[in-house]
Parts: sequence; structure tokens; C-alpha cells
Amino acid sequence: MYTLWKNRYALRTQRMRSSIIRELLKLTEQPDVISFAGGLPAPDVFPVEEFQAATARVLAEQGPAALQYSTTEGYRPLREMIARHTARYGIVIKPKNVLITNGSQQALDLLGKIFLNPGDRILVERPTYIGALGAWNAYQAEYVGVPMDGAGLRTDLLEDALRVGPKFIYALPNFQNPTGVTLSLERRGELISLAAETGVPIIEDDPYGQLRYEGDHLPPLVMLEGELRAADSEGCYSGNVIYLSTFSKTLAPGLRLGWVIAPVDVIDKLVQAKQGADLHTSTFTQMVAYEVAHGGGLDRQVRKIRPVYRERRDAMLKALDKYFPEGVEWTHPQGGLFLWATLPEGLDAEQILKTALEKEKVAFIPGGPFFPPSKEAQGTKNTMRLNFSNASPAMIDEGIARLGRVLEEVLEKSSLPV
Amino acid sequence: MYTLWKNRYALRTQRMRSSIIRELLKLTEQPDVISFAGGLPAPDVFPVEEFQAATARVLAEQGPAALQYSTTEGYRPLREMIARHTARYGIVIKPKNVLITNGSQQALDLLGKIFLNPGDRILVERPTYIGALGAWNAYQAEYVGVPMDGAGLRTDLLEDALRVGPKFIYALPNFQNPTGVTLSLERRGELISLAAETGVPIIEDDPYGQLRYEGDHLPPLVMLEGELRAADSEGCYSGNVIYLSTFSKTLAPGLRLGWVIAPVDVIDKLVQAKQGADLHTSTFTQMVAYEVAHGGGLDRQVRKIRPVYRERRDAMLKALDKYFPEGVEWTHPQGGLFLWATLPEGLDAEQILKTALEKEKVAFIPGGPFFPPSKEAQGTKNTMRLNFSNASPAMIDEGIARLGRVLEEVLEKSSLPV
Repeated sequence: MYTLWKNRYALRTQRMRSSIIRELLKLTEQPDVISFAGGLPAPDVFPVEEFQAATARVLAEQGPAALQYSTTEGYRPLREMIARHTARYGIVIKPKNVLITNGSQQALDLLGKIFLNPGDRILVERPTYIGALGAWNAYQAEYVGVPMDGAGLRTDLLEDALRVGPKFIYALPNFQNPTGVTLSLERRGELISLAAETGVPIIEDDPYGQLRYEGDHLPPLVMLEGELRAADSEGCYSGNVIYLSTFSKTLAPGLRLGWVIAPVDVIDKLVQAKQGADLHTSTFTQMVAYEVAHGGGLDRQVRKIRPVYRERRDAMLKALDKYFPEGVEWTHPQGGLFLWATLPEGLDAEQILKTALEKEKVAFIPGGPFFPPSKEAQGTKNTMRLNFSNASPAMIDEGIARLGRVLEEVLEKSSLPV
Repeated sequence: MYTLWKNRYALRTQRMRSSIIRELLKLTEQPDVISFAGGLPAPDVFPVEEFQAATARVLAEQGPAALQYSTTEGYRPLREMIARHTARYGIVIKPKNVLITNGSQQALDLLGKIFLNPGDRILVERPTYIGALGAWNAYQAEYVGVPMDGAGLRTDLLEDALRVGPKFIYALPNFQNPTGVTLSLERRGELISLAAETGVPIIEDDPYGQLRYEGDHLPPLVMLEGELRAADSEGCYSGNVIYLSTFSKTLAPGLRLGWVIAPVDVIDKLVQAKQGADLHTSTFTQMVAYEVAHGGGLDRQVRKIRPVYRERRDAMLKALDKYFPEGVEWTHPQGGLFLWATLPEGLDAEQILKTALEKEKVAFIPGGPFFPPSKEAQGTKNTMRLNFSNASPAMIDEGIARLGRVLEEVLEKSSLPV
């Protein structure tokens, strides 16, 4: 192929790779594969009827405005609604603290754009959300990974990690992607205190917070931190936590609607970055989402989803007990979409995935790519992320049975003398 | 305000500024202002009824799929449709050459992300689209500006400009934003030849190509260049022009839907960049746009818009003749949304805008920000961009009359001895 473009790529593209998750999603699209690979919500709980009513109303009453250009900050009523909802957590927040983005993923990208110089370090949970690594690799970031256990980020290891001077901390306190683990209340307090002491701000990513299936709601970092800080002179939030969330896991991911809550100064910079990135998020999808979500619509939808996903989580936990061989361990998520399994050290989940797809038509995501790049690869290759939101309980039982057979066989082989 | 975030911005934010256009749009939102400032299509020609039918059909027939995650490349039938439409120009192009973006603006951003190292130079028309400067400033680009005349980019000055080794050429050949000028057929050939000779590839931005009100359609650069190059072994386009277009000026800008046509290798890199930037463009808006556009819908819409905009352009040209004082010159665009006026040297359009808003409630965009940063500021401050698509012929007449009065007064004062 002849093209002058080919050898002109920027240095930053050396760190860009096609996301393994998205490439695998293509493989698992065959209808006979049972896939626990994607992070897909269940399409059968999407509020299609509510969207039908909302789109009809928006186009009938505000058609020309819904199809026209609009402001970079986002649709004002939607920002007001998000500010109201967030205030439920006791955080002093105004619409000026809110920017609408194309899903949380765009918020990660824009934050990288305004904060990251090449070589800047980010303190992350180990493992962490693969999409954050993807967004920030493009800005040539480096990572400091802090291990997790059943209560989340190991805050006892935090002080040492903070000493390298990270630009910020990136944390997913609720039902983390990929592990499903929740940061305990005690550790939330420790994280906030240590960050404040060392002067390192925090990005809190909370896509699943409302999808809790058991136990008590825990306060987000932005609230715990807010208790220590006053608002600015206009009553706007001006603390050290930037909070991200999304409608992707409650209303519908196909809209691509998320939001950032941040000090006004940061929002201003994000708005400038977003102007250059895509002018603004679709006026139409914002208006439709507002129409579906406001006046209790979002809460009703969350109440509809929770029992469905709880049942699926329970089905997966039960199937794992039933079918997975001894020596494999997994987390017990209190919410969200994922759980995390750890195989005996020495096994390679990527190899197992190939076998699983070929022999049993079942898919998952190998855990390796969720670990920030590091010389220390031990304990990364023998892990897998399992999604439980996208398949029915019966399919979950069948799929885990298949995967159990694959693991049994692999373990049997691996214990033979070579 | 106390926040740890404030002093942590990346170096690249020094070049980010809030777009003057967008800030001014806020000023001109008062209902009694007649604004020629924005680049807004006429909302009264939006195909609202077609959108009502399309959204109802998409949600009824494919609701769950329309609301679910989808591939980064874009909705397959939409990419196929764009490939078919582009093939009308005689370009060998496959769906693999097409990436769907959130408006053309995102294409500019992603191209900057994959191609620009800090300090890289871009050869641009002088003046050029302000949004391209906004997107690429974030990647710390530098610019080499080549002047224009009534036939577009001065290709006689191109050889010297190419000597500095720009990474690529950025050109808007049809009804350029901001000048409304069209690159002549002869110069299109010269541009293509000189670019090929010096080994510099081209980004062709064509948001208005279908909105021609007089004269013959001219072949896009991607076609002229394509005549020189063979396709790759799979029959995909693999030339040196990356072509951008959008549904914003034909269907509706509020959807945020544009596209890139590029060699497959470039599309692959853009897809990786888009994965990190926002995963994918809204599934729902893509399906709805396809539903409205395919099977002749887009062509019908273009046929509906053209006479409306032609009438508005004619109304503005007539009003300028009637009301603008001697010494002011303007372009005669054959299509698009804008024309460009040049005031006598020494006048400052930014100052005039303030007077125009205060005294006569009429707005336009001063031309200065459309010029790439340069020591040579002469001939930039005395220019203005006038949009004719967003106001009725009667409002255009009234608005230009108001602006004419402001200019008369300014010229009178400026000729008095100081």
C-alpha cells in the first residue's frame, strides 16, 4: 500500500494499541458463544418504551432546538438534574460544577488532555480499568500501581507509592472494574487523609455506584473529602476530588452520556478541551436522556435493574461454586457488573481463553491487560474478569459449566510431569 | 478557591483558549440581537418529521441494539452508505476506509492525536477554520499560513511554504469557512501536484460541498489525487488525501455526526485513538441518521435546503450592496454558509462588534481569530465573517442595514483628524 500518511504518526501512537477487550468482543459476536467478556448491560432491561415516549416528546415540542448546535458545557436542565442528584450525597454542588461528556471515557480523555505531560505518573489500583490506561497512554503517562485485597486498595501501601509524586490518584471505590471489589469505609477515610497530607488530588470513577445488590451504600470520596473543605465564594464545589459517572449502566450505553463533577476552574479547562475535541455532546441524546431520567425516571429504572442483576450475580456465584475446580478463587461483588477469578499461579488466562472459545464456545477477558505496565508480571496472567450482567441465569449456569470443564482439563494437564 | 487541581495543568493547556466564537455566541443569545455570528444552519429546514418517523422506527424495530454499546468504527450500514455516496465522485472506497466521528471536529482532534508531535507545522489557508486551530493547538502544533485570493489558496506561494516541511496540508476547497471562497479547478490540480512532488499529504475538510447555489460542482481533492493512485490490494482507497465531511450542515448538527475517509492503516490508528477518546459514537444517533439519510433521504434534504440558503445568500449580497459604505469589500460565495468582508486597513472589527452589539443589536465574528498565530498581523483585524444561513431574508436586510449604520459612523470618525 502506498500512502504518504503511513510513516508520519506521532510519538504518542507508540503507546496506543487496539484494546484487547474490543478486539475480543468481535470474536465473541458469534451467536453460539456464551460471553462473559464484555461489560455490556442487559439489553432486555433497557427502558425502550420510555425512550420511545421521550424521543417523540422532545421532537414534537423542541425539535429544532434538539437538532441544533448547543453549548459545550451540556444541556442546562440535565446539568441541573445531575447537581440535584449529587446533592443527595451531601455535597455542595452547582450546575457550574458539571460537564456533560460522551460517556465517562471522554471524561478520562479530557482529564488526560488538560493534566498530563509526557512521563507524568498516575497512582492506580492494581488491576484497574483498562479504558483509563487506554485514554492516558495516549498522553504518555506512567503508572504507579498499588495492590488491592478484598477491601479494595491497600491503603497501608499508599504512603510509599505517594512518595514518587503522582499527578493524581485514580480510584474506582464501588464494585471496581475489573475486580468487583469495594473500598471499605475505613480505607476511604485513609485514602482521603493521605492524599490531602501529601497534596495529591483524586479522580473518583463511579459508573456502578447505584447498582448495589447487598450491604449499605458507602459515601463517595467526593463527599468524604467535601466534609473537609468549604465551597468557593459562589457556593460551588471546590475540593480535591474530581468525580465521574455515567448513564451507560443505568439508562443505556448507546447514548454515550457521562458527566464530570469538578471545581469550576477545572470545568473551564475541560470545556476548552472539549471545544477542540468535538464542540459538544449531542443535543438530541442529552434532551432525550433528561426526558427519561428527570422526575424520578432514573430512580425507577435503577430499581428495575437492581433485582435483575442481583439474580445474575447470584447465579454466577452459585455456578462458580458448583463448576469451578479447587484452587481457583473469586471475588464476591456487592454490586456492579463484574467479578474476578484468580487461577493457580503459572496458568495463563489468555491461552485458556483460546481453548475456551475453540472447545466450549465460552468467553471471558484475561486479567493481564488490566494491570498497568510493570516489570512485576507475577499474579497478573492467571486472572480473569467475568461479566454477569449480560446473560440470563440459565446461560450463566451453562457458560460457567463450560468454563469449569476447560479449567478442569487445564489443571489436570498442568499437574502432569512435563 | 482552594483546590489542589489548580496548579497541575499540562503544558499544552497554555495554548488552549476558550473559543471566541463560542463565547460570543453566548452574548448574541438575547432574542433582540440579529446575529450573523454563529455557523448555525437554519433550524426551520431541519427534517423534524423525518426524524420523528426514523426514531420511532429504530426504537420499535431495533430498540435494544440502538441503546447498546457498539463498535468504534461506527454503524456498518452508515459506513456502507457513506462509501456508496463517496464512490459517486469516482473514488475507489470501501467501508473499511470510513470512520464515524462526533462531527468533523472530532476527526480534527483524532488526526491531531495520531499525527502531531509538539512543534510540528501544518500548512493552512490564511485565514482558516478556527476549530482546526483549536483542535491542533492542544497538540502544540505550529502553522505555516498561505494567503488566499478570490480563487482560493495562492498556489503560486505554495512551493516556498512547503519548503519548511509541514506534516500535512489542511485545506477547505469548497465555500471555505470563514471566507466562502472556492479553490479553482486549476489550483486544485496544482495543489495536488505540488503536495505529491514534495511528499506532503493533505487533509481535505468538506462540510459544505453539497451546498452549492451556483456554478458547477468541482471534484474534491481526494478524487483528483485518487486518479493518480491505485487502490490497495483489497480495493480500498490508499491515497494521500484524508477527506472529512459531516451531516451537521445537511441533516442536523445536534446529532454530532461526521466521518473520515482515509487509508485503512490510518483508519486503524484513528480507531485506537477513538477507543481511548470515547469508545464509540452514539449507536442511537447513527442508526437514526442512517434511517433518515439512506434511500435518497439525504439527497431530498439537500434539495430542500439549497434554495432556502441561496435566497438568504442573495438577500445578504443585495443588502451589502445597499447598506455597506464604500471602502468595504466582500466575497461572493458560490455555496456554504458564510461570506467574508474586509474593511479599510486600520479598522478593528473587534471594537466594531462591541459598538454593533451595544448600539444596533447586531452581531458578526471578527476575522482575527481565524488567522493562524503569526507576527504578521496586518490585514487580519479589519475583517469579519458573516453567516447568512440562520436568518430570514427580511432579518438579513434589517441586520445588514444596522451593521451598515455602524460602519458608516466608524468610517466617518476614523477619517476625522485625530
